[in-house]
Amino acid sequence: MTDTQKNPTSRIVPLLSSESTEVNARTLDALRIALPRERVCLLEELSARECVAIDVCIGANPTPEMLHRLPNLVWLQSLWAGVERLIEPARARKLQVVRLIDPELSRAMSEAALTWTLYLHRRMPHYAQQQREQNWQPLPWRRAMDTRVTVLGLGELGSACAHRLQENGFRVFGWSRSQRKLAGITCYHGMAGLETVLPQTDILIALLPLTAQTRYLLCRRYQLCARCGDRY
Amino acid sequence: MTDTQKNPTSRIVPLLSSESTEVNARTLDALRIALPRERVCLLEELSARECVAIDVCIGANPTPEMLHRLPNLVWLQSLWAGVERLIEPARARKLQVVRLIDPELSRAMSEAALTWTLYLHRRMPHYAQQQREQNWQPLPWRRAMDTRVTVLGLGELGSACAHRLQENGFRVFGWSRSQRKLAGITCYHGMAGLETVLPQTDILIALLPLTAQTRYLLCRRYQLCARCGDRY
Repeated sequence: MTDTQKNPTSRIVPLLSSESTEVNARTLDALRIALPRERVCLLEELSARECVAIDVCIGANPTPEMLHRLPNLVWLQSLWAGVERLIEPARARKLQVVRLIDPELSRAMSEAALTWTLYLHRRMPHYAQQQREQNWQPLPWRRAMDTRVTVLGLGELGSACAHRLQENGFRVFGWSRSQRKLAGITCYHGMAGLETVLPQTDILIALLPLTAQTRYLLCRRYQLCARCGDRY
Repeated sequence: MTDTQKNPTSRIVPLLSSESTEVNARTLDALRIALPRERVCLLEELSARECVAIDVCIGANPTPEMLHRLPNLVWLQSLWAGVERLIEPARARKLQVVRLIDPELSRAMSEAALTWTLYLHRRMPHYAQQQREQNWQPLPWRRAMDTRVTVLGLGELGSACAHRLQENGFRVFGWSRSQRKLAGITCYHGMAGLETVLPQTDILIALLPLTAQTRYLLCRRYQLCARCGDRY
């Protein structure tokens, strides 16, 4: 018996996903437990007629093209916070995009940023190399307050990372495309701000959404990490 | 002209050191700038007669045997905090041992403990291995609050490490030979406490002084990291 046969009048809530088959299978399993009265399926399983009836869907990094298949959609529930590439198409048709702000995701991301920053700051690649050479020489140590870390992108994740790094003693700068303020952190914005902050940066963390404005932002204009390369 | 010739009546302040020739040379340079009116030299440069006159010395991890050469010593200024192996010989002869508590040293040590804890917690050795194999598979992620870190030794450095790890979300336990209390951290003590805390530990950090009581403490009695070895 298929889901449709079990409850033919249940609302269809499609999952619009760019993820792998394996991830989709896990996501669908979890959604079906959370939404036992709805029929949750992948967008590609729906007929054109079914698509016209859809008003609510769930997004796992959907493409704008997927949205075009659902002309009467009023609510897209994103499974995470990054929804930047949907903002333009949604605004054009008055579609509500609802994103999920998960404090655990911010914690995990700021922990990752801290982990890799400490990895470079404490010269772990150098020590690993020395270990392979059986060389046990201590390398010069520097204070965290003398290591300058710049976070590009000051949304939920970028802000959490900037604060976490600052709490752990690093000298932190923030950068965003439009002006943002973070308590206790020197923030720059726009292309002029980027030109100012990059030469002062030892470690650079990119937490920008991938949009037409940010794609190739760094590669196009800067010889990235020229200074970092010298030091680490 | 030697230092002694420059000022033959200056007080001699010997450096008692177990460090390398290179480290001693740097230490002596710095001490001579800080103490321009004293004659600062290595203990081994002094005659037996000069040794008898010494009342103040500076210690860089001196051995108890070095102290025996200075029968009239009243003040030993240690260059750092760890002075445990001098406590017994000093007490026997009413010698004052003065140690240096440097907040920067606590910060650097707690940063090192955090760096290596994150390194294991975020499975960086596994990812490095996968990278060598060109395998880009994400590994299961766990929350810091589910990683249990035990700090052995709750002196200046151990306490700083325990608090730093807790501030960064880890579940932290402390252990010391005699009972100690740290705000917000579950502390154990004595051999019974060690037996209790080790089986609950994912990552173990040893910040114990090297004394007769702590030498071989772990090797003798425990198959260390049996659990960690499974996971990391």
